[in-house]
Amino acid sequence: MTQATETVRNGVDTERLFATLDAVTSQPEIAGFQFRARNRWIAGAHNRTVIKDFHGAGGEDTSRTEPFVLEAGEPAVLLGTDTGPNPAEHLLHALAACLTTSLVYVAAARGVRLTEVESTLEGDIDLTGALGLSKDVRNGYQGIRVTFTVSGDAPPETLREIVARARARSAVFDVVAHGVPVSVDVAGD
Amino acid sequence: MTQATETVRNGVDTERLFATLDAVTSQPEIAGFQFRARNRWIAGAHNRTVIKDFHGAGGEDTSRTEPFVLEAGEPAVLLGTDTGPNPAEHLLHALAACLTTSLVYVAAARGVRLTEVESTLEGDIDLTGALGLSKDVRNGYQGIRVTFTVSGDAPPETLREIVARARARSAVFDVVAHGVPVSVDVAGD
Repeated sequence: MTQATETVRNGVDTERLFATLDAVTSQPEIAGFQFRARNRWIAGAHNRTVIKDFHGAGGEDTSRTEPFVLEAGEPAVLLGTDTGPNPAEHLLHALAACLTTSLVYVAAARGVRLTEVESTLEGDIDLTGALGLSKDVRNGYQGIRVTFTVSGDAPPETLREIVARARARSAVFDVVAHGVPVSVDVAGD
Repeated sequence: MTQATETVRNGVDTERLFATLDAVTSQPEIAGFQFRARNRWIAGAHNRTVIKDFHGAGGEDTSRTEPFVLEAGEPAVLLGTDTGPNPAEHLLHALAACLTTSLVYVAAARGVRLTEVESTLEGDIDLTGALGLSKDVRNGYQGIRVTFTVSGDAPPETLREIVARARARSAVFDVVAHGVPVSVDVAGD
Protein backbone atom coordinates (compact mmCIF):
# COMPACT_ATOMS: atom_id res chain seq x y z
CA MET A 1 0.00 0.00 0.00
CA THR A 2 2.88 2.35 0.68
CA GLN A 3 4.12 1.38 -2.78
CA ALA A 4 0.92 2.61 -4.42
CA THR A 5 0.97 6.06 -2.81
CA GLU A 6 4.68 6.36 -3.64
CA THR A 7 3.93 6.41 -7.36
CA VAL A 8 3.09 10.11 -7.39
CA ARG A 9 5.92 12.20 -5.99
CA ASN A 10 6.04 16.02 -6.18
CA GLY A 11 2.88 15.80 -8.26
CA VAL A 12 4.73 13.71 -10.85
CA ASP A 13 3.56 10.19 -11.63
CA THR A 14 6.93 8.47 -11.42
CA GLU A 15 5.54 5.21 -12.77
CA ARG A 16 4.51 7.05 -15.95
CA LEU A 17 7.82 8.95 -15.93
CA PHE A 18 9.85 5.73 -15.96
CA ALA A 19 7.45 4.17 -18.49
CA THR A 20 8.02 7.22 -20.74
CA LEU A 21 11.79 6.87 -20.44
CA ASP A 22 11.51 3.15 -21.32
CA ALA A 23 9.25 3.90 -24.29
CA VAL A 24 11.62 6.56 -25.67
CA THR A 25 14.59 4.25 -25.16
CA SER A 26 12.97 1.56 -27.30
CA GLN A 27 11.44 3.99 -29.83
CA PRO A 28 13.59 7.16 -29.91
CA GLU A 29 11.55 8.59 -32.81
CA ILE A 30 8.58 9.31 -30.50
CA ALA A 31 10.76 11.91 -28.76
CA GLY A 32 10.62 14.20 -31.79
CA PHE A 33 8.38 17.15 -30.86
CA GLN A 34 7.40 20.36 -32.59
CA PHE A 35 6.01 23.21 -30.52
CA ARG A 36 4.22 26.13 -32.16
CA ALA A 37 2.97 29.63 -31.49
CA ARG A 38 0.89 32.10 -33.49
CA ASN A 39 1.30 35.77 -32.69
CA ARG A 40 -0.83 38.71 -33.80
CA TRP A 41 -0.08 42.40 -33.37
CA ILE A 42 -2.85 44.38 -31.65
CA ALA A 43 -1.50 47.97 -31.38
CA GLY A 44 1.79 49.56 -30.37
CA ALA A 45 3.68 47.21 -28.06
CA HIS A 46 0.60 45.05 -27.51
CA ASN A 47 0.63 41.70 -29.23
CA ARG A 48 -0.91 38.35 -28.42
CA THR A 49 0.20 34.74 -28.85
CA VAL A 50 -2.09 31.75 -29.15
CA ILE A 51 -0.66 28.32 -28.33
CA LYS A 52 -2.50 25.05 -28.73
CA ASP A 53 -1.41 22.38 -31.18
CA PHE A 54 1.89 20.54 -31.16
CA HIS A 55 3.40 17.44 -32.65
CA GLY A 56 4.91 14.77 -30.43
CA ALA A 57 4.90 11.18 -29.29
CA GLY A 58 4.43 10.09 -32.89
CA GLY A 59 1.55 12.32 -33.92
CA GLU A 60 -0.44 15.53 -33.58
CA ASP A 61 -1.64 16.21 -30.06
CA THR A 62 -5.39 16.09 -29.59
CA SER A 63 -5.50 16.40 -25.82
CA ARG A 64 -5.74 20.19 -25.63
CA THR A 65 -9.28 21.39 -26.10
CA GLU A 66 -8.67 25.10 -25.49
CA PRO A 67 -5.82 27.36 -26.62
CA PHE A 68 -3.57 29.26 -24.24
CA VAL A 69 -3.47 33.02 -24.84
CA LEU A 70 -0.48 35.12 -23.80
CA GLU A 71 -0.31 38.92 -23.88
CA ALA A 72 2.79 41.03 -24.34
CA GLY A 73 3.38 44.72 -23.83
CA GLU A 74 5.86 47.29 -22.65
CA PRO A 75 5.79 49.61 -19.64
CA ALA A 76 5.25 53.33 -20.19
CA VAL A 77 8.97 54.12 -20.11
CA LEU A 78 9.37 51.82 -23.13
CA LEU A 79 6.41 53.43 -24.93
CA GLY A 80 3.79 50.82 -24.12
CA THR A 81 0.73 50.67 -21.91
CA ASP A 82 1.61 47.60 -19.84
CA THR A 83 -0.72 45.24 -21.70
CA GLY A 84 1.44 42.36 -20.50
CA PRO A 85 4.97 41.52 -19.42
CA ASN A 86 7.49 42.64 -22.00
CA PRO A 87 9.12 40.04 -24.26
CA ALA A 88 12.40 40.03 -22.31
CA GLU A 89 10.43 39.38 -19.11
CA HIS A 90 8.51 36.55 -20.81
CA LEU A 91 11.90 35.01 -21.63
CA LEU A 92 12.82 35.00 -17.93
CA HIS A 93 9.55 33.21 -17.17
CA ALA A 94 10.27 30.57 -19.83
CA LEU A 95 13.70 29.99 -18.30
CA ALA A 96 12.44 29.85 -14.70
CA ALA A 97 9.59 27.51 -15.62
CA CYS A 98 11.82 25.09 -17.50
CA LEU A 99 14.51 24.91 -14.82
CA THR A 100 11.81 24.40 -12.16
CA THR A 101 9.98 21.66 -14.05
CA SER A 102 13.28 19.90 -14.78
CA LEU A 103 14.20 20.16 -11.10
CA VAL A 104 10.85 18.75 -9.94
CA TYR A 105 10.97 15.82 -12.39
CA VAL A 106 14.59 14.99 -11.50
CA ALA A 107 13.75 15.06 -7.78
CA ALA A 108 10.72 12.82 -8.38
CA ALA A 109 12.84 10.32 -10.31
CA ARG A 110 15.45 10.29 -7.53
CA GLY A 111 12.93 9.77 -4.75
CA VAL A 112 13.28 13.23 -3.22
CA ARG A 113 10.11 14.87 -1.92
CA LEU A 114 10.21 18.63 -2.39
CA THR A 115 8.34 21.06 -0.18
CA GLU A 116 9.40 24.35 -1.78
CA VAL A 117 11.02 25.47 -5.02
CA GLU A 118 11.33 29.18 -5.61
CA SER A 119 13.58 31.13 -7.92
CA THR A 120 14.39 34.74 -8.60
CA LEU A 121 15.75 35.82 -11.95
CA GLU A 122 17.54 39.01 -12.91
CA GLY A 123 18.54 39.93 -16.44
CA ASP A 124 20.74 42.91 -17.21
CA ILE A 125 20.27 44.65 -20.52
CA ASP A 126 21.71 47.82 -22.02
CA LEU A 127 19.07 49.15 -24.39
CA THR A 128 21.54 51.23 -26.39
CA GLY A 129 22.00 47.98 -28.33
CA ALA A 130 18.36 47.24 -29.18
CA LEU A 131 17.72 50.95 -29.82
CA GLY A 132 20.43 50.90 -32.47
CA LEU A 133 22.48 53.57 -30.69
CA SER A 134 25.62 51.51 -30.12
CA LYS A 135 27.30 48.91 -32.28
CA ASP A 136 29.41 47.71 -29.36
CA VAL A 137 26.46 46.72 -27.19
CA ARG A 138 24.47 43.56 -27.84
CA ASN A 139 20.69 43.77 -28.19
CA GLY A 140 19.84 41.12 -25.65
CA TYR A 141 20.61 40.41 -22.02
CA GLN A 142 24.27 40.68 -21.13
CA GLY A 143 23.76 38.15 -18.38
CA ILE A 144 21.00 36.36 -16.47
CA ARG A 145 21.23 35.25 -12.84
CA VAL A 146 18.95 32.55 -11.47
CA THR A 147 18.87 31.90 -7.72
CA PHE A 148 16.94 28.91 -6.35
CA THR A 149 15.58 28.28 -2.90
CA VAL A 150 14.81 24.56 -2.58
CA SER A 151 13.52 22.59 0.40
CA GLY A 152 12.76 18.89 0.68
CA ASP A 153 13.52 15.63 2.46
CA ALA A 154 17.13 15.44 1.29
CA PRO A 155 20.35 17.00 2.57
CA PRO A 156 21.41 20.38 1.12
CA GLU A 157 24.13 18.80 -1.03
CA THR A 158 21.57 16.47 -2.66
CA LEU A 159 19.23 19.40 -3.35
CA ARG A 160 22.13 21.36 -4.86
CA GLU A 161 23.01 18.36 -7.02
CA ILE A 162 19.38 18.21 -8.23
CA VAL A 163 19.54 21.92 -9.16
CA ALA A 164 22.74 21.22 -11.10
CA ARG A 165 21.10 18.29 -12.86
CA ALA A 166 18.07 20.44 -13.77
CA ARG A 167 20.43 23.01 -15.32
CA ALA A 168 22.15 20.23 -17.24
CA ARG A 169 18.83 18.94 -18.62
CA SER A 170 16.64 22.02 -19.14
CA ALA A 171 15.60 22.66 -22.73
CA VAL A 172 15.13 26.42 -22.29
CA PHE A 173 18.37 26.80 -20.33
CA ASP A 174 20.17 25.17 -23.25
CA VAL A 175 18.57 27.56 -25.75
CA VAL A 176 19.16 30.69 -23.66
CA ALA A 177 22.71 29.76 -22.64
CA HIS A 178 23.89 28.44 -25.99
CA GLY A 179 21.63 29.84 -28.70
CA VAL A 180 19.83 28.01 -31.49
CA PRO A 181 19.48 28.61 -35.25
CA VAL A 182 16.47 30.89 -35.84
CA SER A 183 15.16 31.70 -39.32
CA VAL A 184 12.99 34.79 -39.76
CA ASP A 185 11.14 34.95 -43.08
CA VAL A 186 8.24 36.73 -44.69
CA ALA A 187 5.40 34.53 -45.96
CA GLY A 188 5.45 34.09 -49.71
CA ASP A 189 9.18 34.70 -50.11
CA MET B 1 -3.25 69.60 -37.72
CA THR B 2 -2.15 66.64 -39.82
CA GLN B 3 1.15 66.95 -38.00
CA ALA B 4 -0.49 66.40 -34.62
CA THR B 5 -2.34 63.24 -35.58
CA GLU B 6 0.82 61.92 -37.26
CA THR B 7 2.61 61.71 -33.90
CA VAL B 8 1.06 58.35 -33.03
CA ARG B 9 1.74 55.74 -35.70
CA ASN B 10 0.94 52.03 -35.29
CA GLY B 11 -0.03 52.87 -31.73
CA VAL B 12 3.49 54.15 -31.04
CA ASP B 13 4.00 57.77 -30.03
CA THR B 14 6.80 58.57 -32.45
CA GLU B 15 7.48 61.95 -30.84
CA ARG B 16 8.19 60.15 -27.56
CA LEU B 17 10.14 57.47 -29.44
CA PHE B 18 12.49 60.04 -30.99
CA ALA B 19 12.70 61.94 -27.68
CA THR B 20 13.72 58.66 -26.00
CA LEU B 21 16.42 58.04 -28.61
CA ASP B 22 17.71 61.61 -28.09
CA ALA B 23 17.70 61.19 -24.30
CA VAL B 24 19.63 57.91 -24.47
CA THR B 25 22.11 59.41 -26.92
CA SER B 26 22.92 62.22 -24.50
CA GLN B 27 22.74 60.04 -21.37
CA PRO B 28 23.58 56.42 -22.35
CA GLU B 29 23.49 55.32 -18.69
CA ILE B 30 19.68 55.59 -18.58
CA ALA B 31 19.54 52.69 -21.05
CA GLY B 32 20.74 50.26 -18.38
CA PHE B 33 17.75 48.07 -17.45
CA GLN B 34 17.28 45.06 -15.21
CA PHE B 35 14.22 42.87 -15.69
CA ARG B 36 13.17 40.39 -13.03
CA ALA B 37 10.93 37.40 -12.45
CA ARG B 38 10.01 35.37 -9.38
CA ASN B 39 8.87 31.80 -9.91
CA ARG B 40 7.23 29.42 -7.46
CA TRP B 41 6.55 25.73 -7.93
CA ILE B 42 2.93 24.70 -7.35
CA ALA B 43 2.85 20.92 -8.07
CA GLY B 44 4.25 18.63 -10.75
CA ALA B 45 4.80 20.61 -13.95
CA HIS B 46 2.73 23.54 -12.66
CA ASN B 47 4.69 26.60 -11.65
CA ARG B 48 3.90 30.30 -11.64
CA THR B 49 5.93 33.43 -12.31
CA VAL B 50 5.18 36.87 -10.93
CA ILE B 51 6.61 39.87 -12.77
CA LYS B 52 6.35 43.46 -11.61
CA ASP B 53 9.37 45.52 -10.64
CA PHE B 54 12.26 46.43 -12.88
CA HIS B 55 15.12 48.90 -12.95
CA GLY B 56 15.54 51.30 -15.85
CA ALA B 57 15.72 54.88 -17.05
CA GLY B 58 17.90 55.68 -14.07
CA GLY B 59 15.85 54.18 -11.25
CA GLU B 60 13.34 51.65 -10.00
CA ASP B 61 10.09 51.63 -11.93
CA THR B 62 7.05 52.76 -9.95
CA SER B 63 4.55 52.83 -12.82
CA ARG B 64 3.28 49.27 -12.46
CA THR B 65 0.65 48.97 -9.77
CA GLU B 66 -0.22 45.31 -10.29
CA PRO B 67 1.99 42.30 -10.98
CA PHE B 68 1.67 40.10 -14.04
CA VAL B 69 1.16 36.41 -13.30
CA LEU B 70 2.16 33.70 -15.77
CA GLU B 71 1.38 30.00 -15.48
CA ALA B 72 3.42 27.15 -16.86
CA GLY B 73 2.59 23.48 -17.28
CA GLU B 74 3.02 20.48 -19.51
CA PRO B 75 0.51 18.53 -21.57
CA ALA B 76 -0.52 15.04 -20.48
CA VAL B 77 1.99 13.34 -22.77
CA LEU B 78 4.75 15.17 -20.89
CA LEU B 79 3.28 14.22 -17.49
CA GLY B 80 1.51 17.49 -16.74
CA THR B 81 -2.10 18.61 -16.56
CA ASP B 82 -1.94 21.54 -19.02
CA THR B 83 -1.91 24.23 -16.34
CA GLY B 84 -0.31 26.56 -18.89
CA PRO B 85 1.84 26.55 -22.00
CA ASN B 86 5.02 24.60 -21.44
CA PRO B 87 8.30 26.47 -20.95
CA ALA B 88 9.52 25.82 -24.50
CA GLU B 89 6.23 27.24 -25.82
CA HIS B 90 6.60 30.31 -23.58
CA LEU B 91 10.01 30.83 -25.18
CA LEU B 92 8.39 30.93 -28.64
CA HIS B 93 5.96 33.58 -27.35
CA ALA B 94 8.83 35.70 -25.98
CA LEU B 95 10.56 35.51 -29.36
CA ALA B 96 7.42 36.29 -31.38
CA ALA B 97 6.49 39.20 -29.11
CA CYS B 98 9.94 40.78 -29.26
CA LEU B 99 10.29 40.50 -33.03
CA THR B 100 6.79 41.93 -33.46
CA THR B 101 7.32 44.87 -31.11
CA SER B 102 10.66 45.65 -32.76
CA LEU B 103 8.98 45.51 -36.17
CA VAL B 104 6.14 47.81 -35.10
CA TYR B 105 8.52 50.37 -33.55
CA VAL B 106 10.85 50.32 -36.57
CA ALA B 107 7.90 50.83 -38.92
CA ALA B 108 6.60 53.71 -36.78
CA ALA B 109 10.01 55.38 -36.82
CA ARG B 110 10.23 55.00 -40.60
CA GLY B 111 6.77 56.39 -41.25
CA VAL B 112 5.19 53.12 -42.34
CA ARG B 113 1.62 52.47 -41.24
CA LEU B 114 1.01 48.80 -40.59
CA THR B 115 -2.39 47.15 -40.91
CA GLU B 116 -1.44 43.56 -40.04
CA VAL B 117 1.48 41.76 -38.42
CA GLU B 118 1.13 38.05 -37.82
CA SER B 119 3.72 35.40 -37.24
CA THR B 120 3.81 31.66 -36.88
CA LEU B 121 6.63 29.95 -35.03
CA GLU B 122 7.72 26.34 -35.09
CA GLY B 123 10.42 24.87 -32.90
CA ASP B 124 11.76 21.36 -33.38
CA ILE B 125 13.04 19.51 -30.36
CA ASP B 126 14.22 15.95 -29.79
CA LEU B 127 13.39 15.13 -26.18
CA THR B 128 15.92 12.31 -25.99
CA GLY B 129 18.32 15.15 -25.06
CA ALA B 130 16.35 16.70 -22.20
CA LEU B 131 15.32 13.25 -20.97
CA GLY B 132 18.99 12.35 -20.60
CA LEU B 133 18.70 9.42 -23.00
CA SER B 134 21.20 10.65 -25.59
CA LYS B 135 24.47 12.51 -25.19
CA ASP B 136 24.51 13.40 -28.88
CA VAL B 137 21.22 15.30 -28.83
CA ARG B 138 20.98 18.81 -27.38
CA ASN B 139 18.36 19.54 -24.73
CA GLY B 140 16.82 22.56 -26.43
CA TYR B 141 15.32 23.36 -29.79
CA GLN B 142 17.40 22.25 -32.73
CA GLY B 143 15.96 25.07 -34.80
CA ILE B 144 13.18 27.67 -34.73
CA ARG B 145 11.38 29.02 -37.81
CA VAL B 146 9.54 32.33 -37.69
CA THR B 147 7.31 33.31 -40.62
CA PHE B 148 5.80 36.79 -40.75
CA THR B 149 2.82 38.10 -42.65
CA VAL B 150 3.01 41.89 -42.76
CA SER B 151 0.71 44.39 -44.46
CA GLY B 152 0.93 48.17 -44.52
CA ASP B 153 1.22 51.28 -46.68
CA ALA B 154 4.65 50.43 -48.06
CA PRO B 155 5.83 48.21 -50.90
CA PRO B 156 6.66 44.56 -50.12
CA GLU B 157 10.40 45.19 -50.29
CA THR B 158 10.13 47.92 -47.65
CA LEU B 159 8.07 45.64 -45.39
CA ARG B 160 10.65 42.88 -45.84
CA GLU B 161 13.41 45.33 -44.97
CA ILE B 162 11.52 46.30 -41.79
CA VAL B 163 11.27 42.60 -40.83
CA ALA B 164 15.02 42.27 -41.38
CA ARG B 165 15.65 45.35 -39.26
CA ALA B 166 13.43 43.98 -36.47
CA ARG B 167 15.47 40.76 -36.50
CA ALA B 168 18.66 42.82 -36.32
CA ARG B 169 17.39 44.79 -33.30
CA SER B 170 15.32 42.34 -31.26
CA ALA B 171 16.61 41.66 -27.76
CA VAL B 172 15.03 38.21 -27.46
CA PHE B 173 16.10 37.18 -30.98
CA ASP B 174 19.67 38.03 -29.97
CA VAL B 175 19.43 35.90 -26.81
CA VAL B 176 17.75 32.93 -28.52
CA ALA B 177 19.99 33.01 -31.61
CA HIS B 178 23.29 33.66 -29.85
CA GLY B 179 22.93 32.67 -26.21
CA VAL B 180 23.81 34.63 -23.10
CA PRO B 181 25.74 33.79 -19.90
CA VAL B 182 23.28 32.32 -17.36
CA SER B 183 24.27 31.55 -13.77
CA VAL B 184 22.16 29.10 -11.78
CA ASP B 185 22.81 29.12 -8.04
CA VAL B 186 21.21 28.01 -4.82
CA ALA B 187 20.48 30.74 -2.27
CA GLY B 188 22.95 30.81 0.58
CA ASP B 189 25.79 29.21 -1.37
